[in-house]
Amino acid sequence: MKTVGYAAYSDDAHMKPYHFERRELRANDVAIEILYCGVCHSDLHTVNGDWGPQPYPLIPGHEIVGVVTAIGDDVKNYKVGENVAVGCMVDSCQECDQCHNHEEQFCRNGMTVTYGAPDRISGEITQGGYSKHIVVREEFVLRVPEGMDMAKTAPILCAGITTFSPLRTWGVKEGTRVGVIGLGGLGHMAVKLAAAMGAEVTVISRSDKKEAEAKAMGAKGILVSTDKDAMQAAGSSLDLIIDTAPVKHDVGVYAPLLDIDGTIVIVGQVGPMEELMSPPLIMGRRRVAGSLIGGIKETQEVLDFCAEHGIYPDCEMIKMEEINSAFEKLEKGDLAHRFVIDMASLSAE
Amino acid sequence: MKTVGYAAYSDDAHMKPYHFERRELRANDVAIEILYCGVCHSDLHTVNGDWGPQPYPLIPGHEIVGVVTAIGDDVKNYKVGENVAVGCMVDSCQECDQCHNHEEQFCRNGMTVTYGAPDRISGEITQGGYSKHIVVREEFVLRVPEGMDMAKTAPILCAGITTFSPLRTWGVKEGTRVGVIGLGGLGHMAVKLAAAMGAEVTVISRSDKKEAEAKAMGAKGILVSTDKDAMQAAGSSLDLIIDTAPVKHDVGVYAPLLDIDGTIVIVGQVGPMEELMSPPLIMGRRRVAGSLIGGIKETQEVLDFCAEHGIYPDCEMIKMEEINSAFEKLEKGDLAHRFVIDMASLSAE
Repeated sequence: MKTVGYAAYSDDAHMKPYHFERRELRANDVAIEILYCGVCHSDLHTVNGDWGPQPYPLIPGHEIVGVVTAIGDDVKNYKVGENVAVGCMVDSCQECDQCHNHEEQFCRNGMTVTYGAPDRISGEITQGGYSKHIVVREEFVLRVPEGMDMAKTAPILCAGITTFSPLRTWGVKEGTRVGVIGLGGLGHMAVKLAAAMGAEVTVISRSDKKEAEAKAMGAKGILVSTDKDAMQAAGSSLDLIIDTAPVKHDVGVYAPLLDIDGTIVIVGQVGPMEELMSPPLIMGRRRVAGSLIGGIKETQEVLDFCAEHGIYPDCEMIKMEEINSAFEKLEKGDLAHRFVIDMASLSAE
Repeated sequence: MKTVGYAAYSDDAHMKPYHFERRELRANDVAIEILYCGVCHSDLHTVNGDWGPQPYPLIPGHEIVGVVTAIGDDVKNYKVGENVAVGCMVDSCQECDQCHNHEEQFCRNGMTVTYGAPDRISGEITQGGYSKHIVVREEFVLRVPEGMDMAKTAPILCAGITTFSPLRTWGVKEGTRVGVIGLGGLGHMAVKLAAAMGAEVTVISRSDKKEAEAKAMGAKGILVSTDKDAMQAAGSSLDLIIDTAPVKHDVGVYAPLLDIDGTIVIVGQVGPMEELMSPPLIMGRRRVAGSLIGGIKETQEVLDFCAEHGIYPDCEMIKMEEINSAFEKLEKGDLAHRFVIDMASLSAE
């Protein structure tokens, strides 16, 4: 199938139209017309070459919602016309313990990410959601619950699952004391999801200028990380911290906020952190962990959870041609919302 | 009660005899004649001032075994003549959630450590086990199971519980794949305890020169951390790592050895570690944690466990007057055993 998208042609990350072919449907494939695609900071990191060399031209985008336009002969769970979604992965081995355990993101043979990875059968490079169409095997297609606002659903596929999964893994429930570092694309979803689970949520930020926003999202308030007295007073007051800060930083500043056996989960910065001080870990049996998106089953769960609780990311709709200026804004950081590309703005010509 | 011990008089850590008074028995106190006291690296760190200024003269020692010589009026659980032990703490508030939960080491009001801390009632500074006698409230006295070799039991009170507690906290059982970094005082106990729990134990060390010792202790072998191919081949092969390395180091070297959801527990180095790399944590939901000794109930459990399984630390008996040369050897490191002071060598005069 001929289609079009916006690709980076080199690591200058400058996005331009790219006409290309999506594969012909295999028996277990679903063809999707993409309606909306979220803009994730990792899209920028990837096309920028921050995480290593990439196969260009490369179309990023892994927060995808759309409508089924065709199905392969063996597809059982989806019909033409249904609202569906695709997240950060499009394939995995389906045979290892992790795949069997619904943790395809930890597939022993390596998941196939939505863009920039060789397809497991043909070897052709996967291309992401900044495009009109995508073809994905049935097992990696998610269902968008009826009644959801498609325009605002897309960022749940990455920002949503990335924060939902650690909240689930670490057993957040009514009354759990959750801290969220940062109030960007990931952080603001962490706040909404944790609050909907009944947690008492504190946003940890360098200033309190986003306090009204944080409260509107369900947080009880902001703990200002540069206020030493406030940080001291908040010692041992949290059970779990979701750390969405996307730059090198010192988890030792935040670890003392955790109660005994508490965990700080890194989901933002992929790379070096500052020197780790062991005493705050030792003196409270505290833990520093990482977490990577979530499995397909759990991704369906976060979609269903958001539908049930009326949770949506805060989105700013943009046209496809505005992607380069959106990337610039993203680079400057500190946005408490997510850009979402309205694919109607991209002519199929 | 008049008694004698070996104290540091300043942060030169040079140990000399010190004659002093133990407190008169309170109603809930147990008076103990010390028979043996283990020499822990933290004794040296403390009197050296490595962890902050200390009240000198200070008698270290928190791996204490001895025999009850007198009891206070209200003591119910111990009798004169019984074999008992004292570990790293001698008091806590007994009222907070952590004390109620048998985690006195995390007492909300701060545990009273065995030496160098103000007594909760009199305010006098606690003095440790490098001495002939000690007086400790009943709740912090442990029972040495019948038949145990008293001479070799002492190091269980710190090296034993410090490694037993994380093995229990992280649920080690038959078949758990446990790595142990370092084969010193803590490491060699971690190997023996984990092996007795049925774990498959791998020692991780800079060389394989201690392989025979490691195997004799129950390990299946040594993984040489400087052998890149061996480290690569051992990726994702461990469920838990007990990290006893007592110096600044990079946990990122070891984290990839952990399987999904695995944890590396720091029990050796108290201070800065190298820069933490987040990708090995994120890509396998791995965790870095700390652990601090264990509660009194769990300390009794490790004594009972060692009695049941015939586990003893590898000990080298020394006379009290040999403590300074023992400290020198400890400072050079790399001992796969524990020095234990035979208190019979210390004249009460």
